[in-house]
Amino acid sequence: MVLRLDYRQPDFEARFAAFLTTKREVSADVETDVRAIVSEVRARGDEALHDFSQRFDGIDTRKLGLAVAAEEIEAAYRSADPDIIAALEFAHDRIVSHHQRQMPQDDRYVDALGVELGSRWTAIEAVGLYVPGGTASYPSSVLMNAVPAKVAGVERIVMVVPARDGALNPVVLAAARIAGVSEIYRIGGAQAIAALAYGTETIRPVAKIMGPGNAWVAAAKRQVFGTVGIDMIAGPSEVLVMADPDNNPDWIAADLLAQAEHDAGAQSILMTRDAGFGEAVVEAVERQLATLSRSETARRSWADFGAVIVVPGWDVAVPLADRIAAEHLEIATDDAETLAARIRNAGAIFIGRHTPEVIGDYVGGSNHVLPTARSARFSSGLSVLDYVKRTSILRLGAEQLQSLGPAAITLARAEGLDAHARSVSIRMNSRDGGLGQE
Amino acid sequence: MVLRLDYRQPDFEARFAAFLTTKREVSADVETDVRAIVSEVRARGDEALHDFSQRFDGIDTRKLGLAVAAEEIEAAYRSADPDIIAALEFAHDRIVSHHQRQMPQDDRYVDALGVELGSRWTAIEAVGLYVPGGTASYPSSVLMNAVPAKVAGVERIVMVVPARDGALNPVVLAAARIAGVSEIYRIGGAQAIAALAYGTETIRPVAKIMGPGNAWVAAAKRQVFGTVGIDMIAGPSEVLVMADPDNNPDWIAADLLAQAEHDAGAQSILMTRDAGFGEAVVEAVERQLATLSRSETARRSWADFGAVIVVPGWDVAVPLADRIAAEHLEIATDDAETLAARIRNAGAIFIGRHTPEVIGDYVGGSNHVLPTARSARFSSGLSVLDYVKRTSILRLGAEQLQSLGPAAITLARAEGLDAHARSVSIRMNSRDGGLGQE
Repeated sequence: MVLRLDYRQPDFEARFAAFLTTKREVSADVETDVRAIVSEVRARGDEALHDFSQRFDGIDTRKLGLAVAAEEIEAAYRSADPDIIAALEFAHDRIVSHHQRQMPQDDRYVDALGVELGSRWTAIEAVGLYVPGGTASYPSSVLMNAVPAKVAGVERIVMVVPARDGALNPVVLAAARIAGVSEIYRIGGAQAIAALAYGTETIRPVAKIMGPGNAWVAAAKRQVFGTVGIDMIAGPSEVLVMADPDNNPDWIAADLLAQAEHDAGAQSILMTRDAGFGEAVVEAVERQLATLSRSETARRSWADFGAVIVVPGWDVAVPLADRIAAEHLEIATDDAETLAARIRNAGAIFIGRHTPEVIGDYVGGSNHVLPTARSARFSSGLSVLDYVKRTSILRLGAEQLQSLGPAAITLARAEGLDAHARSVSIRMNSRDGGLGQE
Repeated sequence: MVLRLDYRQPDFEARFAAFLTTKREVSADVETDVRAIVSEVRARGDEALHDFSQRFDGIDTRKLGLAVAAEEIEAAYRSADPDIIAALEFAHDRIVSHHQRQMPQDDRYVDALGVELGSRWTAIEAVGLYVPGGTASYPSSVLMNAVPAKVAGVERIVMVVPARDGALNPVVLAAARIAGVSEIYRIGGAQAIAALAYGTETIRPVAKIMGPGNAWVAAAKRQVFGTVGIDMIAGPSEVLVMADPDNNPDWIAADLLAQAEHDAGAQSILMTRDAGFGEAVVEAVERQLATLSRSETARRSWADFGAVIVVPGWDVAVPLADRIAAEHLEIATDDAETLAARIRNAGAIFIGRHTPEVIGDYVGGSNHVLPTARSARFSSGLSVLDYVKRTSILRLGAEQLQSLGPAAITLARAEGLDAHARSVSIRMNSRDGGLGQE
């Protein structure tokens, strides 16, 4: 039975607080195993990758090759269902258009004292993109991770994907081709992360590694962090739906289940002002579960982590929604726009009855890689900004050094840093450095 | 004797590659200790903080109070050297002006199909700022961490600073007052990080924790990451100076030592086209070391990690500089601007002979918290962006759902996600949801 919370219950705060801290993931302790795999790849390069691929994925990469050949990618693209290719290309173009607007602008200016300052953005030279194997191998995620890299101007986008028993999902290869991925290797797990971070004979290292993965992949990303950059470690997905009683309970139930079918650890929450509507949605969920191919996963997620929260009005709901800080927030209420404007913490907001969250998963144009597990309080979804970095620029002439120097020297001395002070004073006391040039 | 590398040596590539991977930090294994401290603070709150402060800092916070009172901050500000206060206020105003330009703009638009998309930026509600005690307690770092938070609109900026044997640096308190820090607690170490992440009776939790610290602080930040956001874990500082022979060797030596005096693990590198100039700088470094208050630290850093790299020309130097990806890059050459434009990886670039890096440490206006240890290949210095987060917005009407729906359904089915497909199709097949409303 799904959890019901009512704001008017005397113990609501305690129950809500407990609900917020429910752990939805068991993190397997794979640190030691992963450390061994990573150091093996660092030491033995390609040979280690071949051995691990044989052992974990049951494939002979010595024979097949680590790299997926251009012809293999091309063949996958050509043999795929044309409707799927058309849908991927439609999604791709929308994602490109939206992400182009995220490109940050360089800034260079001279202030009142004549000091030149600037911020200059450049793309990361090479990024790795991890794509899981099996049922979690989503072509849409290939687009979502690769397109912002391409838009940012990243030259090398290197994809790794495990080929369990030799098989690669052709739609994933097609998506990689559409997104402009530069290289694909049929490797996965911690060994693939190690190869991306440290390089091997075949695989040149990258500077940052993105994309979701299992506990081994996540642990490997944490271990190589510093040597390379990594994206956030994504947890199970979640949705919060705020809905008035004049919604069709079946629509709302479908949205809750779209989240629940992802993973037994996913979380679907309905917030409503009408307990009766809440019950109607619960009934609709039960009905729809019956005809779902992934009903077992969805049923577990809904039973273990789902919730219906009844609130007396949206005023009290806003701070609750901010504490939930949902990855996805659907607002299906009258004046949804006003309510959306009041919410501070959410990865993405889907406004109005005709904006199911699923549109954002595929074809909305915005990114579907979003902060999970309440991290929307302090972080953002994936964007072009994740593939660029900023260099600040400072330029003074002799005159500006005279203006800024004294304060710098005072602060350096206050901090006990003599050499800092000298680096400024030595220039102030001899404008040409004794060498005759300005 | 400092390391000399010459591009023309036959083994240059191997020596340069080894130089790049030199580890400059020994990370103490404090994971287990830190885990115990964190769980103690979670379990016992203020009481645990009192106990740890007594044990590690030798102070009785039960008597003194955890919070630093407003009067204490005010008194520190009033009793400080007026020159220092003036310099802090000068620096503060310049940092504010520069960071105001970094504030990202919201974006909301309607595309050709009538789909509304948007990116909305909001400030993080509360951030914690760790300030180390002792000699690494830098007032300038208080400004650099707190000002961008203030500019971003963060409402609560909570500072923690250990008061070893009861003493707090009054200039640090003054800087906090100038920067607009909201609350200050006299606690430090892993226990302070735990208090910021989980809260205690006295300290409400924050959403993100920033600021440098020792191995215990760094390990605690890693452990609470997820519950709260954290900034990058900073390593020892470094500078790369690219200088022509027509510079005063004393100026360049002063800059190298300004970096070296920070920490025995700091790194100062000179890159020049003239071996003779390199030797002149090495001699100047030796001379200046003699009169430096922190000469022992600077000497160790220079001997262990410093380097003079001789290159035949700047063309070959550019890719080397990009591999070094220095936190600070000083360019003191003819046409420094052109050379700067060719460098891709650097935290900050200081252009021209009158822009010593130290200006950027204090009063340039840009931030001095910058990516260390080659991480400028994939990350940026601290900015307003670190204190805000983006929510994406999507809004479709019934018509737009008809346009976008089919591709979403195709992709959902290709990924085996039935409930995803249903969440869209159920709305397409019944425009009003059976309830009569649009």
